[in-house]
Amino acid sequence: MFLRTRYLQYNAKPDRPDPIYARKLQEVLGGQWGEISVMMTYLFQGWNCRGPAKYRDLILDIGTEEIAHVEMLATMIARLLEGASPADQQAGASNPLVAAVMGGTSMGEAMMGGMNPQHLIVSGLGATPTDSVGYPWNARYTIASGNLLADFRFNVTAESQGRLQVCRLYELTQDHGVRDMLSFLIARDTAHQNQWLAAIEELEVEGFESTPVPSNFPKERELSEVAYQLWNCSEGDDSKAGRWASGPSIDGQGELEYLDNPRPMGPVADLGVVDPRVYGTPKAPEAAPVGD
Amino acid sequence: MFLRTRYLQYNAKPDRPDPIYARKLQEVLGGQWGEISVMMTYLFQGWNCRGPAKYRDLILDIGTEEIAHVEMLATMIARLLEGASPADQQAGASNPLVAAVMGGTSMGEAMMGGMNPQHLIVSGLGATPTDSVGYPWNARYTIASGNLLADFRFNVTAESQGRLQVCRLYELTQDHGVRDMLSFLIARDTAHQNQWLAAIEELEVEGFESTPVPSNFPKERELSEVAYQLWNCSEGDDSKAGRWASGPSIDGQGELEYLDNPRPMGPVADLGVVDPRVYGTPKAPEAAPVGD
Amino acid sequence: MFLRTRYLQYNAKPDRPDPIYARKLQEVLGGQWGEISVMMTYLFQGWNCRGPAKYRDLILDIGTEEIAHVEMLATMIARLLEGASPADQQAGASNPLVAAVMGGTSMGEAMMGGMNPQHLIVSGLGATPTDSVGYPWNARYTIASGNLLADFRFNVTAESQGRLQVCRLYELTQDHGVRDMLSFLIARDTAHQNQWLAAIEELEVEGFESTPVPSNFPKERELSEVAYQLWNCSEGDDSKAGRWASGPSIDGQGELEYLDNPRPMGPVADLGVVDPRVYGTPKAPEAAPVGD
Amino acid sequence: MFLRTRYLQYNAKPDRPDPIYARKLQEVLGGQWGEISVMMTYLFQGWNCRGPAKYRDLILDIGTEEIAHVEMLATMIARLLEGASPADQQAGASNPLVAAVMGGTSMGEAMMGGMNPQHLIVSGLGATPTDSVGYPWNARYTIASGNLLADFRFNVTAESQGRLQVCRLYELTQDHGVRDMLSFLIARDTAHQNQWLAAIEELEVEGFESTPVPSNFPKERELSEVAYQLWNCSEGDDSKAGRWASGPSIDGQGELEYLDNPRPMGPVADLGVVDPRVYGTPKAPEAAPVGD
Amino acid sequence: MFLRTRYLQYNAKPDRPDPIYARKLQEVLGGQWGEISVMMTYLFQGWNCRGPAKYRDLILDIGTEEIAHVEMLATMIARLLEGASPADQQAGASNPLVAAVMGGTSMGEAMMGGMNPQHLIVSGLGATPTDSVGYPWNARYTIASGNLLADFRFNVTAESQGRLQVCRLYELTQDHGVRDMLSFLIARDTAHQNQWLAAIEELEVEGFESTPVPSNFPKERELSEVAYQLWNCSEGDDSKAGRWASGPSIDGQGELEYLDNPRPMGPVADLGVVDPRVYGTPKAPEAAPVGD
Amino acid sequence: MFLRTRYLQYNAKPDRPDPIYARKLQEVLGGQWGEISVMMTYLFQGWNCRGPAKYRDLILDIGTEEIAHVEMLATMIARLLEGASPADQQAGASNPLVAAVMGGTSMGEAMMGGMNPQHLIVSGLGATPTDSVGYPWNARYTIASGNLLADFRFNVTAESQGRLQVCRLYELTQDHGVRDMLSFLIARDTAHQNQWLAAIEELEVEGFESTPVPSNFPKERELSEVAYQLWNCSEGDDSKAGRWASGPSIDGQGELEYLDNPRPMGPVADLGVVDPRVYGTPKAPEAAPVGD
Repeated sequence: MFLRTRYLQYNAKPDRPDPIYARKLQEVLGGQWGEISVMMTYLFQGWNCRGPAKYRDLILDIGTEEIAHVEMLATMIARLLEGASPADQQAGASNPLVAAVMGGTSMGEAMMGGMNPQHLIVSGLGATPTDSVGYPWNARYTIASGNLLADFRFNVTAESQGRLQVCRLYELTQDHGVRDMLSFLIARDTAHQNQWLAAIEELEVEGFESTPVPSNFPKERELSEVAYQLWNCSEGDDSKAGRWASGPSIDGQGELEYLDNPRPMGPVADLGVVDPRVYGTPKAPEAAPVGD
Repeated sequence: MFLRTRYLQYNAKPDRPDPIYARKLQEVLGGQWGEISVMMTYLFQGWNCRGPAKYRDLILDIGTEEIAHVEMLATMIARLLEGASPADQQAGASNPLVAAVMGGTSMGEAMMGGMNPQHLIVSGLGATPTDSVGYPWNARYTIASGNLLADFRFNVTAESQGRLQVCRLYELTQDHGVRDMLSFLIARDTAHQNQWLAAIEELEVEGFESTPVPSNFPKERELSEVAYQLWNCSEGDDSKAGRWASGPSIDGQGELEYLDNPRPMGPVADLGVVDPRVYGTPKAPEAAPVGD
Repeated sequence: MFLRTRYLQYNAKPDRPDPIYARKLQEVLGGQWGEISVMMTYLFQGWNCRGPAKYRDLILDIGTEEIAHVEMLATMIARLLEGASPADQQAGASNPLVAAVMGGTSMGEAMMGGMNPQHLIVSGLGATPTDSVGYPWNARYTIASGNLLADFRFNVTAESQGRLQVCRLYELTQDHGVRDMLSFLIARDTAHQNQWLAAIEELEVEGFESTPVPSNFPKERELSEVAYQLWNCSEGDDSKAGRWASGPSIDGQGELEYLDNPRPMGPVADLGVVDPRVYGTPKAPEAAPVGD
Repeated sequence: MFLRTRYLQYNAKPDRPDPIYARKLQEVLGGQWGEISVMMTYLFQGWNCRGPAKYRDLILDIGTEEIAHVEMLATMIARLLEGASPADQQAGASNPLVAAVMGGTSMGEAMMGGMNPQHLIVSGLGATPTDSVGYPWNARYTIASGNLLADFRFNVTAESQGRLQVCRLYELTQDHGVRDMLSFLIARDTAHQNQWLAAIEELEVEGFESTPVPSNFPKERELSEVAYQLWNCSEGDDSKAGRWASGPSIDGQGELEYLDNPRPMGPVADLGVVDPRVYGTPKAPEAAPVGD
Repeated sequence: MFLRTRYLQYNAKPDRPDPIYARKLQEVLGGQWGEISVMMTYLFQGWNCRGPAKYRDLILDIGTEEIAHVEMLATMIARLLEGASPADQQAGASNPLVAAVMGGTSMGEAMMGGMNPQHLIVSGLGATPTDSVGYPWNARYTIASGNLLADFRFNVTAESQGRLQVCRLYELTQDHGVRDMLSFLIARDTAHQNQWLAAIEELEVEGFESTPVPSNFPKERELSEVAYQLWNCSEGDDSKAGRWASGPSIDGQGELEYLDNPRPMGPVADLGVVDPRVYGTPKAPEAAPVGD
Repeated sequence: MFLRTRYLQYNAKPDRPDPIYARKLQEVLGGQWGEISVMMTYLFQGWNCRGPAKYRDLILDIGTEEIAHVEMLATMIARLLEGASPADQQAGASNPLVAAVMGGTSMGEAMMGGMNPQHLIVSGLGATPTDSVGYPWNARYTIASGNLLADFRFNVTAESQGRLQVCRLYELTQDHGVRDMLSFLIARDTAHQNQWLAAIEELEVEGFESTPVPSNFPKERELSEVAYQLWNCSEGDDSKAGRWASGPSIDGQGELEYLDNPRPMGPVADLGVVDPRVYGTPKAPEAAPVGD
């Protein structure tokens, strides 16, 4: 069960409204790598966790913190939108220079082109659970497989893509209030990248899992001869120059190998014949089926 | 530009048809972590790559190989479906024991319950670019950020989740032909997990990127005091026992710290007032707006 | 079966084209609370209705009217778009002041930024069944549960959200032709809000259904001790001050009650162990599974 | 900011596993009217709320409680799934009667037809944020318009549709543990229906809003002559017999009226001509465009 | 504007309920090639039509007829579902042979596996605007480009795919009532295929449009040397044997040609350098950006 | 299996960057009728093909070529985006005339309104598998039914809609490099329209399939009396004037006929009664259900 304080985890107040930036900031609220994604991912990983209690607790600690991040971003976006209104549109139209240049389109109108129109029409100047192009968040962004190493690798990815996007958004504004909040989120993503990497280390040290995931699938059941090869499927061999093409494999179980000129190991594909009542196209023309 | 041989990369022939298993196998063809996802992800990462040629070539080598994996799975699924037809349904109904037990529902009917009905109605016993519940593949499964460390972490995740699912599917069938093909795919996922991990090593060794991603965001712009803390947002402190709660941070830039009883650092949220012509609910009742 | 007259239900002619406004107006055509949503919702509620004929007829009357609303909006949007063309883009570029200010970007180009590009590329200046951010309408906006009170409550909501959005769109234009059509739609939404509220009254008076929906679920099967409590899950007790926190319940079956400091009524969650062949993370490390 | 206790709000333990029922129960976890929908809806309504503090607090109290409902359902589903494993499938196959009847399809296989295959392949026997057909939750289920009456009407609907679905799910199982948890959820939905209805009463009493929503849109701007009419767009006049067809309107501002034989009030639609470079079909054939 | 009669266009009554078949039949109601798709496609094509009145009228005639097809299918599905209820599930469980064979799973349960669970939980035994896997209809199935030849080609396709699916569904049932309705729909699809093909003929005869669509794009602006070639991008030359590889082109403007061994006509791709503040991976490691 | 050369199929280099045009160009990369759609459609049609080898090879030749088109468009878009950066935004702001006119919004900011924000935040100035409104590509754009005539009709449509969109995009730019690449794509679409039309001819000549698709469904099973009628469901009879309303049918099997005043052939719809435990609304009020 969950409880809520009325205080935000950190500041979320812009110096001034900026409805166009509000649209962009939606990316890290409701986008694929936004805060709703990590909140839901960690909560579901935690609720479904059958591993040791300390992992479950770690996951749910961070998952619960992420609800607060969602709250901060929603608050910030609502405040950035407070400068947009139908009245502003009229104001723009009364500036004669603007009117001349714009050929009848007011500045407010032009700005509305850059705004997400749903911020005005649908949410009435509130944040929405969507990304920067207005596409709604969906639960395919939530990853919880039951295998903690597979999932922690995803978590490291999510914090990496997320921090990358927040850094890009930092560069897209000069507003001190916005930058203050983003500097907090960037730092928390630093913390979370480190924590998930530490958790991966711990999982491996404690013998729960290792590369390749899942590591306890019986070895004799995989086709070991192709398990450490790089197939050069492009013309040229630039890809031969890397760590990935030779030397011991990262999992310590084999030797990396480069296939310069790979050959298919399978036969030509050729499908069989199916019932005429499926009405597909057969190898030769056939009559209409009879019977019931 | 791309060219195609008529040979499959490896065998893709089941011992016998199994339309219910065909539905399950769709998960690793058109699901979130299926072969279409890695094919499209690697191709877009490669086409958008502005880094050194050897990374670009590696990405496109593996991306081109994945097209062959999609081809093998599509072929296998089409063959698994060849046993399903309207005729089979009638056969089921004529088995009197089945009819008695089923109370009028034929075995074929019951099997159809387990089949994906679109395999019969929509694709005419062919594979579809959908997952095991029939949900269509979509491009939000494609990740290409332009930052190779962020993306290679995703690639490791994708190969981990993918191999995990193929292993689960291996356990769900006894068909030797299917298991033969899956043993090949499992081995290739072993190779790819190792290769992406090796590529991460190389990227870091060569000085392109490191933790936290992106690592060249100016340090003084993140709120460093919270950059290595774990906030215990759940009752209890099971999460204190892990590597993530103390010791040097994984990025070597700080010391991990545990906040037992974290306090909000922000104020109470309180939104401002907006134009009445947005027709939202204000802090106090107000009259209808006037003017145009 | 349905028939069509060539006349529009009301006027749908703008004073002048405005392709940026056309994009916004799409919200009430193909958005979540737009006319396609109510058209499809009412038609499906009607076709699935097993209640008395007068309710079924009411639903289908309004559903059939809504097809005409979709027609009017589609016509209006096509007309608003008639001012946009590749030629207009060139015209903008030849205005030297614009060119100077825009640094090479023509006004037409800038306006295209505010347009929905699919109005030009995909529909050739016709309306599309999408909302104001270009997201396609989908059938999850259609609600038909078979329980008329549950559904009529939805209908009141749909007419409320819809009228709210049309009012906001009215404020976003000064075009008399557009406002003329919107004044008609706003009035029809007034009518429909009143009609669905009247239908709710009638359903309750006639004894079909009441609060809580569904009202004929056996009372002894719900955990009555928590059926009228408000759990204060936030710090502070602002929420204690309302009608919802004390006094007789609205359904007349209980007394509303405020839980200042609610306590969980359940145990700590703890999941069990699962088969190793699922390859999840167990409570303790385990060996690879054996057998087939 | 949010905190979490380790205790569930109420019991969530089935008597025994039932993976087919687990799939159905997903509807009220990740479906359109499930607990994720009300959790996200109330949290966003609260975070975006610019109305009086007591409303904001009420919304966030209930929103925070809903996180606990999501947690209970996720836990219950994970436990219902513990009975499904690849091993069970083999067991089924070894029952000779089953094998005979099934013609080679094991019972486990047949049950898998009824299970959501992603529960085994994707989540490893954990709950997923999807509905009973496996369709992922998406944020278009979240409603927050900034107008509290519009939104509270939605909330009443959501609690009605949700309680209806939980009651149907109650009838679909005999498991006492599951029914125990559902009796709690049904009771909380009773409470919430009453609370949102009480909040609507309070909003109207305090003068914030009334029918038609939004009520402060200037009356003179709607086309009042059609604001209280029912247009009989179907053959027959069953719909004339209801409260909605005559008498004072519910908002007290007009008289309800029945239009037996409604006539269109608009002209025939006829679109204009557009630039040939859009390459649409004009009223008469035309030559290829020239120039750049 | 539209009006509705109470009569169905044709019979829609099954001999007996069949909830599993109801799920399959959904494909041609709410699937990609179902009746909602053609209804919406034709209505939008008609409303957006700027061509001669006879084409517009044809499109809207057929579009209006399709509403009646949606109505018939919705009615049929609701009737097919009338045999499914929680009570039926209990009945199944009391058959001891079934119970023995099923190992505790009742027949009703097994049937539920084949049903769409939302038919019971969400729609209360009514039709839903979804396909046979429960995926909701969406507006990307609606095609209206403004170019009538492009669109009529789509319409021919839609009627072909649709008739194909209805024929497959005919084979999947023995119910006379269902087959009666399907024989009507199959015949109407015959009519519509013929009508759209006739309309294509008329468009070409009247000089509105021809192959290649759009035919009035200036010829000198396409790279004519590759306009009639088949590039053999696969090993082998089976594709050389067809009408498509030589002889006069279908549009009468060129000669079809076969490129046995096609060579790329472009250079090696090589992207440029971007601003370091985008935080992507450059060609060589670089320092953190400075400045604001 | 597939292989890749490092050369592009044709040139893909713009004269200069244009991030707003990049967003529009996405339509033919990741839109419904873009290159990803035809690539995936043809590959799946080929892999699922059970018809003669020459058809299968043709489909896979063109499908393999389309991968190269996707590559060219992705490369072009990445290059068009190279002109956008956070730095450009600041440059705009320092132009005093712009600043005056824009009232504080920099030109860069305004341009960002026209850009797809995800090109900056998500992909770091790379192409994305989405359309011009940022909506992700999804697999419902892939059509492969197993019936080659149904599918080739779709292919003709796809090449028609696709060429139409590329022609519109040609008109929206003056950049010679972009126009050079588009002139190649337009010519290839000319080739493909001709090839699919030729393939349709060949299929019919060889006796595989004809109108109506599927042509081998037994004639006596369709309701032949309505198989060639046009039902005039709109007021007026403009639609009577076309080739579709009289004369021999296109399939040569009947005579086209016009129904001026069509009458429903079915009865009034009236649904039955369902189990009270579904909690729907019945024809008359009923008591709560009893029993378990």
